[in-house]
Amino acid sequence: MIAVILAGGSGTRFWPRSRSEVPKQLLPIAGDRTLIQKTVERLLPLIPVDRIFIVTNQNHAVETNRQLAGYGFMPANILVEPVGRNTGPAIGFAAAVLSSREDEVMAVLPADHFISDPDRFLKDLEFAESVAGKGYLVTFGIPPTHPETGYGYIRQGPALEAVSGAFAVDRFVEKPDRPNAEKMIAEGGYYWNGGMFVWKTSVFLEEMRSHLPEVHSRLDDLKKHCVINDTGLATRQLDAGGKAVFESLPGISVDYGILEKSSRMALVPASFHWSDVGSWSALDDVLEKDREGNILSPNVVALGCSNSVIQGETRVIGAAGLKDMIVVDTRDALLVCSKEQAQEVKKIVGVLEKENREEVTTPATVMKPWGSYTLLEKRENYLVKRLEVLPGKQLSLQSHDYRCEFWTVVSGVADVELDGESFKLDAGEFKFIPVKGKHRLGNSAEALLVLIEVQFGEKVIEQDITRYQDDFGRC
Amino acid sequence: MIAVILAGGSGTRFWPRSRSEVPKQLLPIAGDRTLIQKTVERLLPLIPVDRIFIVTNQNHAVETNRQLAGYGFMPANILVEPVGRNTGPAIGFAAAVLSSREDEVMAVLPADHFISDPDRFLKDLEFAESVAGKGYLVTFGIPPTHPETGYGYIRQGPALEAVSGAFAVDRFVEKPDRPNAEKMIAEGGYYWNGGMFVWKTSVFLEEMRSHLPEVHSRLDDLKKHCVINDTGLATRQLDAGGKAVFESLPGISVDYGILEKSSRMALVPASFHWSDVGSWSALDDVLEKDREGNILSPNVVALGCSNSVIQGETRVIGAAGLKDMIVVDTRDALLVCSKEQAQEVKKIVGVLEKENREEVTTPATVMKPWGSYTLLEKRENYLVKRLEVLPGKQLSLQSHDYRCEFWTVVSGVADVELDGESFKLDAGEFKFIPVKGKHRLGNSAEALLVLIEVQFGEKVIEQDITRYQDDFGRC
Repeated sequence: MIAVILAGGSGTRFWPRSRSEVPKQLLPIAGDRTLIQKTVERLLPLIPVDRIFIVTNQNHAVETNRQLAGYGFMPANILVEPVGRNTGPAIGFAAAVLSSREDEVMAVLPADHFISDPDRFLKDLEFAESVAGKGYLVTFGIPPTHPETGYGYIRQGPALEAVSGAFAVDRFVEKPDRPNAEKMIAEGGYYWNGGMFVWKTSVFLEEMRSHLPEVHSRLDDLKKHCVINDTGLATRQLDAGGKAVFESLPGISVDYGILEKSSRMALVPASFHWSDVGSWSALDDVLEKDREGNILSPNVVALGCSNSVIQGETRVIGAAGLKDMIVVDTRDALLVCSKEQAQEVKKIVGVLEKENREEVTTPATVMKPWGSYTLLEKRENYLVKRLEVLPGKQLSLQSHDYRCEFWTVVSGVADVELDGESFKLDAGEFKFIPVKGKHRLGNSAEALLVLIEVQFGEKVIEQDITRYQDDFGRC
Repeated sequence: MIAVILAGGSGTRFWPRSRSEVPKQLLPIAGDRTLIQKTVERLLPLIPVDRIFIVTNQNHAVETNRQLAGYGFMPANILVEPVGRNTGPAIGFAAAVLSSREDEVMAVLPADHFISDPDRFLKDLEFAESVAGKGYLVTFGIPPTHPETGYGYIRQGPALEAVSGAFAVDRFVEKPDRPNAEKMIAEGGYYWNGGMFVWKTSVFLEEMRSHLPEVHSRLDDLKKHCVINDTGLATRQLDAGGKAVFESLPGISVDYGILEKSSRMALVPASFHWSDVGSWSALDDVLEKDREGNILSPNVVALGCSNSVIQGETRVIGAAGLKDMIVVDTRDALLVCSKEQAQEVKKIVGVLEKENREEVTTPATVMKPWGSYTLLEKRENYLVKRLEVLPGKQLSLQSHDYRCEFWTVVSGVADVELDGESFKLDAGEFKFIPVKGKHRLGNSAEALLVLIEVQFGEKVIEQDITRYQDDFGRC
């Protein structure tokens, strides 16, 4: 079996932890590893890492790569979409790349869901593989626990003759209103559509040809224009021609474009506990609560609070008398809302987007292939950052046209190159980088390098950078 | 008339805006000026600034001075208590210092109350002065608006014969429970005790001799040991002998120690709108609300919120579905509580105090006589600060035994002295201050000086400082 993990996401529902540059799957929302890490981990007992593929976009490719390196994940297995066109074209892109393996079974899985019992999940997946082997497009049906209005539903049809334990699909039901959701729950035989599918690549491509020919007809083109970006962060990308093709595709979900129309659908009821972790209030389904029903991070002093989620970072948080509330505190943005209104977070992000606030796009701590930086303060003509450079890594050789930089090493040893000369800076040492100075920062020591950088100049923006050489293909 | 403003305060009830080093009266809680500034402003039409005295403690004297300098306030009129001993000894100390003016009338006023109509207040004060002139100890009675359990009450006695509009005091009632508060409101003739008093110094001293002789007998000693600290921040302080005397005094309120026992009390009903601004929920009484009953600072995006106080600084705050909530966001600490539980803030501070958290004592931005500094980041072996030095001011000539400092000027021009040499640093220039280097930072230019300082060393604590000369008497 091959796995294709869909890793899109706009980063709005878990704001302010998520940002457009760091959507949900890249965050450790439900434990100490990120959702995409857990998604890959879950598959490894069944599917070797070189058979796991991820479809994501350019903004998230580097961080996805970074997060999965520890599993031996192959960077070339990251397929980069130039734009988002919903799941139909995304899966089509993957199927095109994998079309030489058309006899194999492909599991399509979202990167940002939560599954608490991986063993059951793997058993179900193996069973679904056997059903798919018989020529079906398999969708997992999640037994509903309440009349949720946020999911689509699938009505179970008769049991398949070919394989016991799987069912025909009677019909797909779009996200219902409350009364209809209640009706379906009362009636029985309905499942939530969790967006997890299993099929033979060949069968999927046939069905796409029948039902979504406007996408299927371009798949060969996509395959032809797909190239491996051969740098330290190798990814499969589309060249200029391929990008144009992809951009011309209609934005359509695989459900609507193919599955609802196909006569080869099969439903496999899931035996595992699943959550799409669709909003902050869904944390209740995935994290352990204390006796009062609270989920608190360590820096919280809570008095008389119940059924509340209070998640912070380093800042101390005092809370009193909160009931059914959500508090999410980050270095540069704060969210406070009632659980009932957790879906309103999207609207808050919408308001901030219109104001072009950076808090929508970029977190205060930005992960980089060489480590990370944290913005400590930003004003018009200067900013202050803490840089952390991992052992053995270096930033690009670069220069800036509008700013100079003041570097103070506070931990570790820095390798500094400036206009052809090289220096070592110990903790407690300093270097000035003038405007247009060609410079590079690296860490060849064994400990983390931590450096305070003051940027000063006419323009202090990330875009003011010229790269001359980069270990991560960013020139 | 002379005014004595009592400015104590532990800084717990308005945490995290207030800290033990910056209690409520020093904060702009109810508008753009601080409560102590407003208290002084309110008096100025009636009482010249040189006749206004403040009793406070050493921690708050410098900042009190700084805040009142713009009114021409006389630094020597700041009386510094070595320890807090409640209002009895505090007023006694002031009366001792002012005993040479014993025929004058003294108004005693808290520094941290809110009064919305200063004209009515001044009229009432003038009337109280006339009553005090007849030998009474006058207390203002605040007409109660609801059965508050957080205040003491005063029961009105018969009208005074000597002066119409004033009443005898029947009795003082300590903070009641709810049923008793309701009973008093229903019965009528009760007032809140607002802690504002007017009397002739001589009459007060006589009553103190009768009812609180253990304090009265030490007043001459206090007066004798009171010295003016003759620096740029002149204050009246007690010398070592005076401190010992003051420390030996019992901690007792003027109400309990004198007023409840005196037969010379008079009650003047207040015609002005008053609030003691006793907790975050009291902001409702003093600030304007929007149509949904919210009090929001500019950086808040609020959807579906009502009757809530959301006060931030620069961080963006998203809020949804809050009802009757309080959110107070500062750079280093966050409070979220229901209005009902606003009094619990004290307990939160108590928990943090036990953990010795600096967030209880010191704000992220610390005001200094020369300007301010803001802590941007602190770790074990380094910290990063933004310093702002006012035009014409300089810090002390100083050195540090355990840390070096890296200074980058980002705005204005710095005057730097290091080991006897002097430099000017423009914006974009840098200076390294080695361990034990004798250095000084000043701003002789006309614009604000802003400087980013990285402190690095074995110990990075405020206490690691040796001062050789200081414009503010801190050597």
